[in-house]
This record gives sequence, structure tokens and C-alpha cells, in this order.
Amino acid sequence: MKRQSFTVDILPDRVHARARPGSLLADVLTAAGLPISLYCHKKGICGKCAVRVVGGPLPLLQPRERSLLESRGLGPDHRLACLYRVSGNLVLEILPESRLEKIEVLETGPAAPILLDPRVKKLALKLDRFGKDAAASEAEALGLLMGTPDLALSLPALRELGRLRESSRAMATVVLHGEREVLALEPGDTTAEAYGLAVDVGTSTVVAELVDLATGRGAGRASAMNSQVSYGADIVSRITFAFQNPEALRRLQNAVVRQLNDLAAELSGRSGVPLGRVYEAVIAGNTAMSHFLAGVTVDPLARSPFTSVFGGLGSIAASEIGLDLHPAARVYIVPNVRSFVGGDIAAGIAAAELPLHPGSELFIDLGTNGEIVLKKRDRFTATSTAAGPAFEGMSISCGMLAVPGAVHRAEWASGFRLHTIGGVAPRGVCGTGLIDILAIGLEQGLIEAGGRITSPDRKLHLSDRLSLTQQDVREIQLAAAAVKTGVRLLLGESGMSPGDLDAVYVAGAFGSFLDIRHSRALGLLPDLGDEKIRFIGNSSLAGAKRLLLSGPERTAVEALVKRIDHVSLASRPDFQEEFIRSLELGPLSGGTS
Amino acid sequence: MKRQSFTVDILPDRVHARARPGSLLADVLTAAGLPISLYCHKKGICGKCAVRVVGGPLPLLQPRERSLLESRGLGPDHRLACLYRVSGNLVLEILPESRLEKIEVLETGPAAPILLDPRVKKLALKLDRFGKDAAASEAEALGLLMGTPDLALSLPALRELGRLRESSRAMATVVLHGEREVLALEPGDTTAEAYGLAVDVGTSTVVAELVDLATGRGAGRASAMNSQVSYGADIVSRITFAFQNPEALRRLQNAVVRQLNDLAAELSGRSGVPLGRVYEAVIAGNTAMSHFLAGVTVDPLARSPFTSVFGGLGSIAASEIGLDLHPAARVYIVPNVRSFVGGDIAAGIAAAELPLHPGSELFIDLGTNGEIVLKKRDRFTATSTAAGPAFEGMSISCGMLAVPGAVHRAEWASGFRLHTIGGVAPRGVCGTGLIDILAIGLEQGLIEAGGRITSPDRKLHLSDRLSLTQQDVREIQLAAAAVKTGVRLLLGESGMSPGDLDAVYVAGAFGSFLDIRHSRALGLLPDLGDEKIRFIGNSSLAGAKRLLLSGPERTAVEALVKRIDHVSLASRPDFQEEFIRSLELGPLSGGTS
Repeated sequence: MKRQSFTVDILPDRVHARARPGSLLADVLTAAGLPISLYCHKKGICGKCAVRVVGGPLPLLQPRERSLLESRGLGPDHRLACLYRVSGNLVLEILPESRLEKIEVLETGPAAPILLDPRVKKLALKLDRFGKDAAASEAEALGLLMGTPDLALSLPALRELGRLRESSRAMATVVLHGEREVLALEPGDTTAEAYGLAVDVGTSTVVAELVDLATGRGAGRASAMNSQVSYGADIVSRITFAFQNPEALRRLQNAVVRQLNDLAAELSGRSGVPLGRVYEAVIAGNTAMSHFLAGVTVDPLARSPFTSVFGGLGSIAASEIGLDLHPAARVYIVPNVRSFVGGDIAAGIAAAELPLHPGSELFIDLGTNGEIVLKKRDRFTATSTAAGPAFEGMSISCGMLAVPGAVHRAEWASGFRLHTIGGVAPRGVCGTGLIDILAIGLEQGLIEAGGRITSPDRKLHLSDRLSLTQQDVREIQLAAAAVKTGVRLLLGESGMSPGDLDAVYVAGAFGSFLDIRHSRALGLLPDLGDEKIRFIGNSSLAGAKRLLLSGPERTAVEALVKRIDHVSLASRPDFQEEFIRSLELGPLSGGTS
Repeated sequence: MKRQSFTVDILPDRVHARARPGSLLADVLTAAGLPISLYCHKKGICGKCAVRVVGGPLPLLQPRERSLLESRGLGPDHRLACLYRVSGNLVLEILPESRLEKIEVLETGPAAPILLDPRVKKLALKLDRFGKDAAASEAEALGLLMGTPDLALSLPALRELGRLRESSRAMATVVLHGEREVLALEPGDTTAEAYGLAVDVGTSTVVAELVDLATGRGAGRASAMNSQVSYGADIVSRITFAFQNPEALRRLQNAVVRQLNDLAAELSGRSGVPLGRVYEAVIAGNTAMSHFLAGVTVDPLARSPFTSVFGGLGSIAASEIGLDLHPAARVYIVPNVRSFVGGDIAAGIAAAELPLHPGSELFIDLGTNGEIVLKKRDRFTATSTAAGPAFEGMSISCGMLAVPGAVHRAEWASGFRLHTIGGVAPRGVCGTGLIDILAIGLEQGLIEAGGRITSPDRKLHLSDRLSLTQQDVREIQLAAAAVKTGVRLLLGESGMSPGDLDAVYVAGAFGSFLDIRHSRALGLLPDLGDEKIRFIGNSSLAGAKRLLLSGPERTAVEALVKRIDHVSLASRPDFQEEFIRSLELGPLSGGTS
């Protein structure tokens, strides 16, 4: 007997599909490439997958389906796709609001949008039929009502369940973490107020973005200098500080937690979103930052074999580290790849979607510590390289941070033409300006490929008041060599040369302002066409936001960090030789294996 | 080809077994009915399954196996059964300390011992080879060392891991909860100091027992009057108190938590076991008590349809309810069966091992609230019945609690002969005394079957100073009728009569002191031979201890409470008629369906 099937015509997409009798409409639409919102995982309790039946069978409405449709003002010809079983030929219209939203998280660059499926979700329910079920307790009744018999209520949620039942028999909102953990219960329908915090804890700067978990839209961004700088400008000095003082770890933790609380409060004040409506924070930082945040010692990071105490932490209570959000809020610290390749890099790779691309790609995050990840088809290798503080304008005689008055761009027009941040008079030179100046110097013969300044006074005169010394050039040369060595050894280890790369992602604020031509000339970036080099800005924050908005992405990044092989540069016998070779100023040549 | 097998002769048991080549010796011993301690679940890290190889192959010792055996002072002819694969004929001796300990938890009555397998376990490990593995972090290295790659360390455990690594490379002790959750890490080998608390929170009395988790032995028991009595002597008045006062719930919670802390401190002081070595408490109580303990409202228990807010709570942090044990200690509240059949009953059924018996059995806990559970082969039904306070000596003109001076036994010798608790002059009559007196009165014709006192002054004269009034008799009659109705309806609902019962378990202090003949005469207990009636004492505490010492038992009791069908007496149409019938003083007749 031939298997029967029905036609399903979908408007307004004009997609024609076929469906077996009894198949779930939600599955038919997904298979037809029309993803709809299955926010409650097809349990029929969120009402977000409504469709209009233009022609075809209209089965009787189930009581909860009726009330969900009515609460959205939808007429009797509407049904929930996650409850509708196909029993005849069908013409239907997907409501615009039923489509699964795709959210763009990377503000610069080409990363594809993600599908909104946050770990923390709110579902509004009518409790009025409560206790009439065969359930042995109200908690069990709630589990049955939500189609999740193994629902796990926290103690505060249970206390609220007891109170709610007394104060209101109408609407209540369940705040879910994952599929079965109830973080909180709230009277009324508060589904419109669900927020999360995406955070990048950088060594220099902390950035937080308040995100609407129901829409994926940002509700404000705030940043501040990492207040840990008072304990050390760079990461190594902070690790040393923590290593030498028993009280230091707590001070470093307090500093970053207080700062996160300040940023959260600032965002709350600006947006009008109460902190009590912020249910989760996803925090990306390097390995030392995530240890400081968790209050876990970084001593093992200070000594060979340079291990970290933990990789990932899973989901912990925000209160456990003193974060003042909703009392039951969770914190997810993006897992670290390895001691010196942290969660910020894992987040960045996720944001740039490296695992989803077919080819071979390089991810570079330039800073005091340069992290480099190479993807050769399915295989990931990562390394870190100590570039030193030159790229941040430190250890340079006229160097400064990228703040107003800093030379951040330079051109050659019969002499150096300098551009400053804010267009004010130049006070010094920041990292990107240094790269420009060195590349121009090389181009114009003011500096030899070996780094020697050719002028008799061994100075590179930039303006009446600014000049670079021979020592300054050496510092930049060393920093660039560190990055070049890392890239070349990683490529060589995979038997690749720069030309084999399909794309290079340059992460970080420093990277974003780099002049692409000058960077290639110094070998900081591989010698590839412009179209293959992608500046993706703060990909750590973008990755944190991505993981905040998608539970499945979180599972994926946890699998990813386990897949990445770490290559220790210093332990390679050819490191010294490669490093000396990389000191030569000039384009990045092929790797060595 | 015939499958090869080897002989395994086991001493000192003189058991002969056969084993396939390559089979694990631990499995061979278990299959041969000689259960050995597999404390670390055959991961080769606890060293508790050592055997001596008297004759047969002696494979090379693995490094960890060698150090485990050495630390126990065992010679080179010893091996761990969980690592030994059979490769030839074998003669071996099981060391006495390698046998799985069976622990008796029920102090009275016939329940079989349980196998020691607590949820909280300690394992001592050498950390000296730490970090030399290919692990990405110390947490991962610990997981590999313990054969548990998905080991989950709490934040305090991670902090300790970082410190331990610095302070000591030798021995550390992992405190495990379940197979993968690390509660704490301790420097040195502290495996000998692992304690738990088994608690029965009764409406009148709270009893706590300190238990050695490594041996199952009790390390002291303490009890006190439930200090909630100042908010109401019985459960109904406490529920009413909580219902009427917004602050009441917190006060009731504080009262019981403070009391548990006092008892724990007392046990700690007496035994010398620091509270920081107590890692778990298992607490059994009725539904209202478990709600008070968790600080969850009991308001729904006060009104139809009398639901509870929760059944079970799973495992929660002791700190969440304010219990002062080890900072990371867990609390397991025994799950409730239903609103008025609580975790104390679930614990009691587990302690009496009803689910393991083949026949039909009845479990009765007599008190202000009488709980009755009937097992008819595989089917469990339960009900509760409001006996009122008469059995506790309340609402009786000369009634009193079972304290010194209370008449707790009475005989007839040409007149009442009274026995008091402590042998002092009678000051009043407690519950068991009342049962004796009523049964004697019926026997001697001083009371009619209908309850009428035959003497002209309508008094039952017990001594010069003590007598029961007609009203007193009515109170006891009502209490007994409530229990009789419950038993009869439950039996009837299953199509059974009292004679079909293979055993009756009588739980609780009141039950333990009942005169068996007099109780049968009044129908409080079914008319069965003495050998079928088993007084099991505080089975709630015994059950809590059982669940403290056995993780598998906890899983079993969670499945059990879901299997028990609840029968609501009041909702049955024949309840009134049965109740009136049960008012007649006399043996329990057959049930009605």
C-alpha cells in the first residue's frame, strides 16, 4: 500500500512541502527550511509558534492552546504549530512574530546571525486550574502543567510557589534555566522583562552589555578601565602580585566584581531595567581574569608547567561570586582553552563562527599577550605569545594608551603626517600609530629590515616634539616578532603557508584600528588580499552575547575548547631560531614545520 | 571451540567459582554471592577491595594500586579485585575489611541490614603526579586521576585545589557527593573522619543521630522536644498558626533549624567529632515539618484540596536552610508521599523494607495523625486519619504525656492495677495506659461495646485520685475509630480482610509501648497472631539513617513514593458509615470494598 501524504503550502513564503499523516506541523516547517520559534521546546506552553490555517483541517482547540492564542489576540483560525498534527492538505500562513529570530551579535565583520534560544527563558502560565490535577504536590502540578515532570524548583522558587498560589490564581511567570531548572517564579506576566548581561573582562578594559533575552536586542553598553590595573598594568604583574600577597587574590576578585556591579548598576539606571530582572551573566575573559573573578588562585599559572586550576566552571550562582543581579541569577564563565588561551578567545572563535566554516582560517587577538588560533579544516590548534606591552604604547619613550591626543595613524607625504585620536595636538603615539610609523620607516628607508635606524642620530623624527628612539624600534620589533613567530610555527606545525588561509580574523580593539597594508608590510598579518582579512572588534564580548542568547552555542563552545590542541611555543626546539628569523621586519613568509 | 574458563577458589568461605578469561575479579566475587566493598565504584582509587592471591597469576602492580596497598600495609601478594583480571586458575582470600559491610539500622524488629554505600564518600589521593598529565587544567587532571572526567568541583573546592597544589604535593582527600560532585578538598588523608546526621523531625520530638559514614556505626544520639510546640502542640494548630501570621513561617523554621543545630552541636561535643566533618544530613518528617524546615508555606495544606507545595526537594545545600555543618554540607529531606503522608512514613516503609517483601503487609504509624500504608503484593496504598490528640494523653481529663508519673500500663486483678513510667506515684494516664484501661473496662463489663460506662456515676475509677469520665472514653473511642476506619477502608479498597495480612508493622514510640492484646481487643491492631505484629520503634529515624548510608536506597525511596496511591478517606461516600461502625469497641473486622 502506498504511503499517504498531504500537501502543505506555506504563505507568504510560497513554499510547498509534503507531510505524512500525523506529523507535527512544527517539524514539517523546520524540515522545509522555515524555522519557527520553538521557545518552549514544543511543549505547547509559550504560544510563540502560532500559524493561521488558511485552508485545511481545524482540529478542536486544546484549552491551554485556546488561552495562549486568545492572550495574543489571535482568532479561531489560528493554531500552535507544535500541537498541530497534519491530517489533510493544508494552506497556512506563518505569522511574522512566529519566525525564529536571528540575532546579529558581531557588530563588525561578516559573522552570520544566531538563532535566539537563550538558556534563561520566561514562560507565563495560568495557575487557575492548579491542584485539580492528579499531582501529589503543587510543584508536581507545575511540572505537569509545563510538560516537564522532572522540573526542579529552587527553594526560593518553591517558597514563591506557595505564596503565589495564595495571592493569585491567575497569571504567573516561570523563570527557567535550561529545560528543567526553575530559578524563580513571579506573579503576573513578566515575560517582557527578561534580561541578561554579556561581559568581556579584559586585562585593560571591562565592557558589559545589557541584553533583552526575549528579543536579543541590546539595551545598553557600558565600559570602564579594569580597576585591577592598580595592582598591575598587565596580566603578568597581576599574577605576580597575587602570587606574592595572600590577601591579593581577594582584592583582585573584589575589584573586578565591584566593577561589574558598578557597570550593571549603570546599565540598569540608564535603561530603566531593574537589576532584579537580570537573570544571567555570561562573562568572557582570559584564564587569569576568570580565575580572579572566581576567587581561585592563579599561582599555578605563574610557574612551569603553567597550568590553570580550572577550564570551565559550568553555571554557578551569581551570588556565589557576589554579583548583584536577580537573587537567583546564574553566571556562566566562558571556558578557557588552556592556561594562556582563555575564554575570551573561545568566545571570539564562536563569535567569528570558525567551527561552522569549511576552510582553513586564522584567528588573531593582538595585545600584551597575543593569542593565535589556527583552524585547518576540522583541526584547531592554538598558541599564545608574549608580545609585551609595546602594542599598548607602553615601554616606548613617547608611547601612550589609545586615548585623545595619541597618534593612532600615520601617513607619508614627504614626511610623517600624523593623525591623533580626537584630532587634538599629538601628545604621544599609541600602538596602531607605532605600526604605521615603523612600516613607513621601512618603506622610506629610514629603518633597515634589521631594525636599525639609518639617520645619524639614531632617531625617527615624527614632529617637532615627537620621535622614536632605536630602543623604541627594538621594542616594537620584538612585539611583532613574537606574533610572527606564533603564526609561523602554528602554520608550520600544520604544514601550511600563509597563502593557504581562506580568512584571517583580527580581534580586539588594537586589531580593529590596525592599518591593513602597514600590518602586512611588517608581517603582523599574513600577506593576503584585503577581502580575506576581517577585523571583528571585541569578539570576546560578541561571543559572550552569543552564548548568552543561545544555549546550544554554549554546548558547542564547551565541545570546541576540548577539541583545540595547544601548542607551546617555548617548548619547541626551533622556537629561538624562528624568533630570530621573525625579528627581520617584513612580510610574513611561509611557516616551517 | 569450547569456551575456556578458570576456577576461582575463595577463602575463607570455601566458595568455588568459575571465571571467563579476562573477567574482573570484583564481578566474579559479586556473582558468587560474596559482595566486597566497591566503594569507589571499581575505579581503583579507594583500595578497599584488596584480596590476597594465595595461588595463581600475580600481574604487575599498577603504580596507584601499589601505593594504595602499601598505605594499607599489604604485601606484594595482594591485589585490588576491581583491577584484577582473571588469567588463570586462582585461589584467593578475601580480607575481612574488604567485605561489604552490612549495617543494621532498625534497632527493633526484623529488618535486614543494608549494604553501606553512602552518597557522601571520601577518597584519599596522592597529588604528586599532578599536572604531568595531558590535562588542560588541575581540575581536569583531578578528574582523570579519579577516573571521572566529568568531575564537577564546587567553587570552594576549586579554591582549595589551587591552595593544596601549592601547600602540599602529597596526600589530599576528596569529599564526593554522588559520583561526580566534589563538595570539598582537604589536605592530608581525612577519610577516617566522614560523618552524617540522620534526623527524625517529629511533631513532638526531634531525634538526631550522628553516623560514621565510613563504617555505618552510630556515634551518638540526641533528642529534644520539638521547640515548635510553643506555637502549637499539634500539627494542625501549627499549620493554623502559620496560616494566620505572616511572620510565623519564619519563626517555625527558625525554631526547628535552631534545634537541629543545637542537637548537632551537642552530638559533636559528646563525640568529639567536629561539625566541619559532618557532610550530610538526611531528615525525615511529616509533610508540614518538611515544609517548615524548608521555609515553604503550608497554607495549601490548610484548605481543600489539601495539597503540599512540594513532594521531594532533592539534595540542597545545608547552608540554604541555615544548618551549621560543614560549609559545603548537603541536606536530603526524605520525599513526602502526599499531603498527610510524609517523608517520615516513606522513611519508615524503607526501614521496614516493605518493598522488598513478597506478601501483603500493613504499616501503621499511630499518633495525632495516624498514617496507614497497605502493601498488597506490588501495589501500595496509603491514607491518613485524624485520630486527634487522645493517644498523646491530650483532651483527656486525667491525661498526660508519656513522662514519669504517667500510667502507661494497666492490668486487672480484682481492680485496676496501674504501672507508671519511672515507677513513681501516678499523676495521670498517657496514651498506652488509656488503651489498656479501655480494653480492660470492655473485658470486665465496666464499659459497653458502644462506649457507655456502666457504673451509676458514669466514671471509670482507676485509683483513689484517678478516674476516666464518659467524655474521656468518647475521646478514645473516636481516636480508635479513626484508625479502624482507615485500616478497614484501605483493606476494603484492595478487596482484603485483616486475615489476608502477612505482617503488620507498628511504627512510632506510642506504637512500641502498646499492649498487643489490648490493642487487638479494641481493634487498633488487626486480630492477627503475635508473630505477625512487629513493633519497629522510630522507623522514621531508622529510615533516615538507611538513606544516609545508601545512595541506591535513596533512589529506591524516590521511586517508591511515586508508586504509592493515596486514598482520601473523607472523599469516600462510605466514610461516615464506616466511621460510625468503627466506633463500636471491639476487634477489627473485615474491610468493606
